[in-house]
Amino acid sequence: MKIAVVGMGPGGWDKMTVEAQRALEDCDVIAGYSVYIALLQGRFPEKEIITTPMRREEERCRRAVETALTGKRVAMISSGDAGVYGMAALLYEVAGDYPPIEIEVIPGVTAACSGGALLGAPLTHDFAVVSLSDLLTPWERIEKRLSLAAEADFVLCLYNPASHRRPDYLARACEIVLRHRSPETVCGMVRNIGREGENAQILTLSELKDAQADMFTTVFIGSTATRVIGGKMVTPRGYLQREARP
Amino acid sequence: MKIAVVGMGPGGWDKMTVEAQRALEDCDVIAGYSVYIALLQGRFPEKEIITTPMRREEERCRRAVETALTGKRVAMISSGDAGVYGMAALLYEVAGDYPPIEIEVIPGVTAACSGGALLGAPLTHDFAVVSLSDLLTPWERIEKRLSLAAEADFVLCLYNPASHRRPDYLARACEIVLRHRSPETVCGMVRNIGREGENAQILTLSELKDAQADMFTTVFIGSTATRVIGGKMVTPRGYLQREARP
Repeated sequence: MKIAVVGMGPGGWDKMTVEAQRALEDCDVIAGYSVYIALLQGRFPEKEIITTPMRREEERCRRAVETALTGKRVAMISSGDAGVYGMAALLYEVAGDYPPIEIEVIPGVTAACSGGALLGAPLTHDFAVVSLSDLLTPWERIEKRLSLAAEADFVLCLYNPASHRRPDYLARACEIVLRHRSPETVCGMVRNIGREGENAQILTLSELKDAQADMFTTVFIGSTATRVIGGKMVTPRGYLQREARP
Repeated sequence: MKIAVVGMGPGGWDKMTVEAQRALEDCDVIAGYSVYIALLQGRFPEKEIITTPMRREEERCRRAVETALTGKRVAMISSGDAGVYGMAALLYEVAGDYPPIEIEVIPGVTAACSGGALLGAPLTHDFAVVSLSDLLTPWERIEKRLSLAAEADFVLCLYNPASHRRPDYLARACEIVLRHRSPETVCGMVRNIGREGENAQILTLSELKDAQADMFTTVFIGSTATRVIGGKMVTPRGYLQREARP
């Protein structure tokens, strides 16, 4: 009895790892949020699908575990990585209520990496990943993390920067970072990574504060070392700076 | 004229994305650190190889750019992701000294994700990635980042936790984190992800302080929310905790 939790990467069949593709090909049942199922573009018409809407994640995991316990091979999909804000943790939590079942996590390319690749190379130095969704995290904790990460001069990568219910969260996050960083700080926004309408934009932190984001956007805020080089957002690792030292 | 910077993932052909495999298959020349070239296990005997030792990264990039400018298709490989402490940034910097050349970054699964998958699901909430290598970063800056990230209650993922020249850096990092977190904090170490000798271990922060790491190790330090569930390192996202709220 086994469930595979599969990180699909940003979307697009060839942006998955070969082992992730194999897990989807080899399973009997695919479980996932309907938007992720749609990314498969009807590739597996013969397979059983378990899908629940957003905010019904626990039910999705329970149905996946119960189905796997009947002997079917279940693959539960997450976009990006299976672990980074993904379904793997909830599946471990829920599985504790059932007879033992093996959970295999198959990692994927998370938006920090796929979005970073579109912008250039923003994550070549230390970085912090923060979700601005306060559905499951008190906003005060998010604010504290943003403030300390900005003080630490991390490059920041923001997931879930906005939604209909919280259109101003990105602006609030930028205001916090602006207490520690220049308005000219190099930032980037990517949207629909690896999907139709893919888009990458480089802008300053003060411009980012007024920018429109949605739930398909990933945001990058540079460190004090981040530069625009050749039209790309680049955080130098320091190789050339080392050469330049006396 | 184009160079592809290819993230190979942890190692192992089927842990690469399909587009990364295609970039390696389609190129004339593969450039990379000798350890990464070895991960290809002689798969491309017909291709030209450009390799330089560690600390000769700038030369490697210059030779890759100069080769691409002769019209050859060059793929430069990084283990993990192409951007996360990878070669993409240096390539952008170096390419500025030459006639225009297109750089395509093909992302891969970084050790935070591939190592996290082996341990369970440690990165389901906000996290920070810090390299303990002080080759290119002053140790004081690393210490400050560790301290602020610990205060912010990020899960921490440490790259390059030790080397022959700095065997005690992991212990020093743990001491900094211990000022903010309990000695019982759930931690994890993974070694040789996706390669021969792959190994994952869960331990407490006080045990981690005395543990042996090397340059093939990735270290995870849990947040205050991280738990051992079913023998795995799991940071709950909060779905079940939300259900439990009155």
